[in-house]
Amino acid sequence: MWPALFTPRAVALVGSVGEGKLGYYLLRQMLDGGFPPARLAVVNPKGQGALGVAGYPSVAEVGGPVDLAVIVTPAATVPAVLEECARAGVRAAVVITAGFSEVGNVAGEEAIREVVRRTGIRVVGPNCAGIVNTHHALFPTLETRPPAGSVSLVAQSGAVGGVFLAWAKEHGLGIAKFISYGNGADLNERDFLEYLAEDPETQVVALYIEEVTEGREFLRALAACTRHKPVVVIKAGRTEAGRRATLSHTGSMAGADSVYDAALRQCGALRVASLEEMFDFCLGFTALPPVRGRRVVIVTNSGGPGVLAADRAEEVGLTVAEPSPALRERLSAFLPPHCGLSNPIDLTVEGTEEGYRRTLMTVLEEYDAAVALNIAPAYLDSVPLARGVVQAARESGKPVAAAFLPGPIVAEAVRYLREQGVPNFATGERAVAALARLAEYDAVRRDSASPRRLLQTFGVRHEAQRSAVGRDSASLRRLLRTVRHEAQRSAVGRDSASLRRLLRTVRHEAQRSAVLLEPDLMAWLRENGIPVPPFRTAGSADEAVAAAREMGYPVVMKVVSPQILHKSEVGGVILGIGDDDAVRAGFARLAEIAAGRDFRGVIIYPFIRDAQEVLVGLFRDPQFGPVVAFGAGGIYTELLGDVVLRVAPVDRDEAAAMIRETRMAALLAGARGRPPGDLDALADLIARVSELPFLYPEIAEMDLNPVFVLPRGVLVGDARLILRFSDSPIL
Amino acid sequence: MWPALFTPRAVALVGSVGEGKLGYYLLRQMLDGGFPPARLAVVNPKGQGALGVAGYPSVAEVGGPVDLAVIVTPAATVPAVLEECARAGVRAAVVITAGFSEVGNVAGEEAIREVVRRTGIRVVGPNCAGIVNTHHALFPTLETRPPAGSVSLVAQSGAVGGVFLAWAKEHGLGIAKFISYGNGADLNERDFLEYLAEDPETQVVALYIEEVTEGREFLRALAACTRHKPVVVIKAGRTEAGRRATLSHTGSMAGADSVYDAALRQCGALRVASLEEMFDFCLGFTALPPVRGRRVVIVTNSGGPGVLAADRAEEVGLTVAEPSPALRERLSAFLPPHCGLSNPIDLTVEGTEEGYRRTLMTVLEEYDAAVALNIAPAYLDSVPLARGVVQAARESGKPVAAAFLPGPIVAEAVRYLREQGVPNFATGERAVAALARLAEYDAVRRDSASPRRLLQTFGVRHEAQRSAVGRDSASLRRLLRTVRHEAQRSAVGRDSASLRRLLRTVRHEAQRSAVLLEPDLMAWLRENGIPVPPFRTAGSADEAVAAAREMGYPVVMKVVSPQILHKSEVGGVILGIGDDDAVRAGFARLAEIAAGRDFRGVIIYPFIRDAQEVLVGLFRDPQFGPVVAFGAGGIYTELLGDVVLRVAPVDRDEAAAMIRETRMAALLAGARGRPPGDLDALADLIARVSELPFLYPEIAEMDLNPVFVLPRGVLVGDARLILRFSDSPIL
Repeated sequence: MWPALFTPRAVALVGSVGEGKLGYYLLRQMLDGGFPPARLAVVNPKGQGALGVAGYPSVAEVGGPVDLAVIVTPAATVPAVLEECARAGVRAAVVITAGFSEVGNVAGEEAIREVVRRTGIRVVGPNCAGIVNTHHALFPTLETRPPAGSVSLVAQSGAVGGVFLAWAKEHGLGIAKFISYGNGADLNERDFLEYLAEDPETQVVALYIEEVTEGREFLRALAACTRHKPVVVIKAGRTEAGRRATLSHTGSMAGADSVYDAALRQCGALRVASLEEMFDFCLGFTALPPVRGRRVVIVTNSGGPGVLAADRAEEVGLTVAEPSPALRERLSAFLPPHCGLSNPIDLTVEGTEEGYRRTLMTVLEEYDAAVALNIAPAYLDSVPLARGVVQAARESGKPVAAAFLPGPIVAEAVRYLREQGVPNFATGERAVAALARLAEYDAVRRDSASPRRLLQTFGVRHEAQRSAVGRDSASLRRLLRTVRHEAQRSAVGRDSASLRRLLRTVRHEAQRSAVLLEPDLMAWLRENGIPVPPFRTAGSADEAVAAAREMGYPVVMKVVSPQILHKSEVGGVILGIGDDDAVRAGFARLAEIAAGRDFRGVIIYPFIRDAQEVLVGLFRDPQFGPVVAFGAGGIYTELLGDVVLRVAPVDRDEAAAMIRETRMAALLAGARGRPPGDLDALADLIARVSELPFLYPEIAEMDLNPVFVLPRGVLVGDARLILRFSDSPIL
Repeated sequence: MWPALFTPRAVALVGSVGEGKLGYYLLRQMLDGGFPPARLAVVNPKGQGALGVAGYPSVAEVGGPVDLAVIVTPAATVPAVLEECARAGVRAAVVITAGFSEVGNVAGEEAIREVVRRTGIRVVGPNCAGIVNTHHALFPTLETRPPAGSVSLVAQSGAVGGVFLAWAKEHGLGIAKFISYGNGADLNERDFLEYLAEDPETQVVALYIEEVTEGREFLRALAACTRHKPVVVIKAGRTEAGRRATLSHTGSMAGADSVYDAALRQCGALRVASLEEMFDFCLGFTALPPVRGRRVVIVTNSGGPGVLAADRAEEVGLTVAEPSPALRERLSAFLPPHCGLSNPIDLTVEGTEEGYRRTLMTVLEEYDAAVALNIAPAYLDSVPLARGVVQAARESGKPVAAAFLPGPIVAEAVRYLREQGVPNFATGERAVAALARLAEYDAVRRDSASPRRLLQTFGVRHEAQRSAVGRDSASLRRLLRTVRHEAQRSAVGRDSASLRRLLRTVRHEAQRSAVLLEPDLMAWLRENGIPVPPFRTAGSADEAVAAAREMGYPVVMKVVSPQILHKSEVGGVILGIGDDDAVRAGFARLAEIAAGRDFRGVIIYPFIRDAQEVLVGLFRDPQFGPVVAFGAGGIYTELLGDVVLRVAPVDRDEAAAMIRETRMAALLAGARGRPPGDLDALADLIARVSELPFLYPEIAEMDLNPVFVLPRGVLVGDARLILRFSDSPIL
């Protein structure tokens, strides 16, 4: 199907081509783009052609091998048109026509899908802005025709694509393919990623999405693509308002943005916030060799803009290191004495072609990449400077980005730079930002563990479910017995049911969720290899004293009641109990707190001191399924906002990376004279937790908070588990 | 002097005007800009004129009222030229010539200053790119001549100014004045701020600085200017590398960036990071009425770009609120059914002139500002849409920003928008970012307390010093006695000296700094109205037990030694001591820790529990003098990075604002079931601390950490004070 879509032998435009009609503009665009008129046909009831292209009353009558149909007929007719196309041997269709799910016409879109399923024809759209393959002179789109090149753009939004293509034309960024897929009734971002990963004409993929469906499949395709080439992604709907806006115009449910952020990063994709950034990074990726490190040098002919670029470079993670004494000496051998030899290197307004060339050649022996800034006064001819930069870029083989400005004054020099393959950015700040992302991509690509880990993550579902068969039999059943117990209390003892019926009951009664009591939960965690402290339960003050003695003072005592979820907020947790009397007093206090509620006694633990507290959590994202969270624990979870997410599961290495990414990592590793925490045990815990939702699909949410990180080992101090029973699969 | 500089009756260009010379280009620029040739003169030894402007061998011979000289003679001649100009009655000079302090020629620059002092002539430069007054057709600069308007740009860097002016011409941003002041040997940013604050032709000030001198004077001028008009500031050198770069090209000492950030904000200035932002914000400020709130509506004709703008709007602090049901109803009465009535409001690609006009008019009754997005396909004529937007902006009187794109397709519509006073931004994201800063400025300007507070802050120095006379006599003298004591130990008893001589001794011996012991420090804090817990000192275990009993158990005990600065890191702090035995054991342990060092016994406090810990600090910035800091205390200071700075002193209101700006504010106010802390007492403490460096100029640094915030009152748990004795004034 891909050749039919992108390199069709012949194309049929289906719809009216009267002047002023959409079809007319599309036809003109295709002709202007250079597609041979002889391989174009127009199809509409009257068999009316236009612009020298023959018209036919039906696709079947066109004759010859029509691979692709471009459809602009009214929405109501589209399914039938597709059907007819398929029958005539057309293998792919681009449906420009709008008026489907985006305006509530879900049935119409389903009808398209039905034709696809039945006939095998593949569809881009509906409600899309068309496609482009510059290397096949194929332009069935209303957007600007860009120059040919190696960036391929996949955009859910046609308008976003249109802006990007117009900029591409304006600034000479070469495009390979453009696909606007609109509602994505059939083919969607995932399919295009899979195709572009292998497409030899595509070096860089730019992706604009507002939402994805089948999140894990999308991530797998994305991870596979980033192994081959950089993927720059805008995921719109970062904020509440933006998310609402995507809902209103696509009618879909979007996942939490922080999960998207984690997932995209996990896949090695480069997320950007704005179209300008996306454009800059694509420009960098197509024009520059790999940036193999973060040491950047700025060569400028004026101080101020050099400082602004240096500031930005450091802020985006590059190192604007000083030149070595040896390098400085070599520079001073040929540069005039008024030049600044720090980084940025300031050639001053007297900088020449040879000055730029030789300086860049010299410094690039020591740096990973360079930015050549030229802030041209009106009287200066910048073309020689551009020549110096081009020569240095070519001879050094290293990445050299230019920022020649301001625009109108340097237009000719910029044209020359572009023709010679040196990308020019709007400002030095934007140039260094692009270099930083190139360096980031290079680091990700060279981390050979990453791809393996990714495939493991996104391929793990079936394996985990398989291995779970043996493992869950004992502990899950016991866990479920607990749940059943709870359910019976309210469900008035429907006891004879099978497990399936029981779950249905629980689901019904508990409004699709169930909360477990702490002693059951702790026991279950322990059985599943999660380290918990020893504990005892007690139903009376005497039992509590006996348990505390057995445990050894001091102890911690907490109330147990299915009706008290947030124990510490009602005073249901007593720390550091030192003797029998205090135990009795504590028991009385907790019983009083639970008065009038379903009091099930207390749970007693040893009192753990001097540990650092962290949080390990799980939740289920609507798009991506289970997500594991790690961050600062206790009251600092909210305060710090220092939580790192990953789409689950993660292995130990990835878990260790999560720990390192938090701001509290330094504290855990033993800053300020504290004993270092057992980070290996912590990584083990995170990895183990991240597997649980695959063993137990009923887990909707789990919080282990606090987790005590000790010099040796870790212990879960408190846990909250929410189960949810539904017939939908976990992913 | 200002009229001489900006509205000179006649201008003399001093220097060579041979073709290809700097002077030639300057002369041509002035003539091209429309300055009457009859009011121009050229001065050089040969009396050679050019381009129809008469030449003279000396300024004196020009005759007539030459107010301004523009000097391009070699650096060595500049002082003499200035002298001659002054003698001839010239009152202001712009020295374009480079080769002064920026290349190490400090003497040359001092010679200029000497002429200024002696003759009263005022100088812009040297090493500058000239000045502009569009309203007087005055263009003695090599940069682009911008259109006339109301933005005035003050830039230390000529190149930065050049880029800005070129963009101004390209995008039609009107400029009133441009001043590049280069090395600022005489007039500097402060003088220009004072002038522009009162200049009726200037509505918006854009300021690019790399460093300032006399920080407090600068802040006073800045605060006075922001009371009248918005000041958009780029302070370059935000990062280490950037700071190094400013050093290398201006040879000055830069203060910490976070202090600049706080100080600029305190003055009501709007700091931006990039020249593009500065440009956008100036465009917004000049073209739009005040933005009186943060509710923004986005009216678009395509979904994707609308979402991107909505995301960005929320991120920069605007509210993309949904329209009310009533408003939605009014919209649905006239908009076609396929339009999206959420915010962003999507008119779809079928949006018309009347659609934009009426929608904007309707929604602006409910919102504070609007962005009109038009993503034009190539076949669409955008001029009618621009007309709709212009009409709505005019009729509503509310701020309406446009983002018509992509560039080449909408060029004519953008020209129309500009002519009609509606600013057009490169993208919707950049439009909302500009609106956000307008809203911010409006809020600052309407907070009538701000300006009063600012003047108080930056004018407080003398008052504080006056009132300090009475207050310090007792406590400071006692404090100094302690210092003297320390100094004597090492200075071998030079006892007969006067206070001044003593300080010199201390300074010498202690290498310009001295550290105080905790008991002395706590006593001194208490005498100065800083709340500290009760405490006792003890030199033996028996004394310690007596002190602890008097205090009441449990207590805290800390080692006292001038050689142990970081007590807790060596185990020198024991918390929660419960009885006599524990006191004895603790004393022994602390004595052991201090073994071999200068052990001065222990200090004993009551043990304070369940308090929240914060930090209040003071330090002295090289540019701005005393700075007060507030943030999370204990081990979280570094972890959180949650510290807010202000140039000292601050009053209670400002201190309360500091507390509110931290992330921990919610916790202090009593989140998660905790008792709320006494925020009034905390604000009092911050304000009082912020006054101390004015009472005691010897204070170099002070850390109160932790400060315990209790439900009633606050208490300083530990303190560190570093004194520094120098002859330089505190500010």
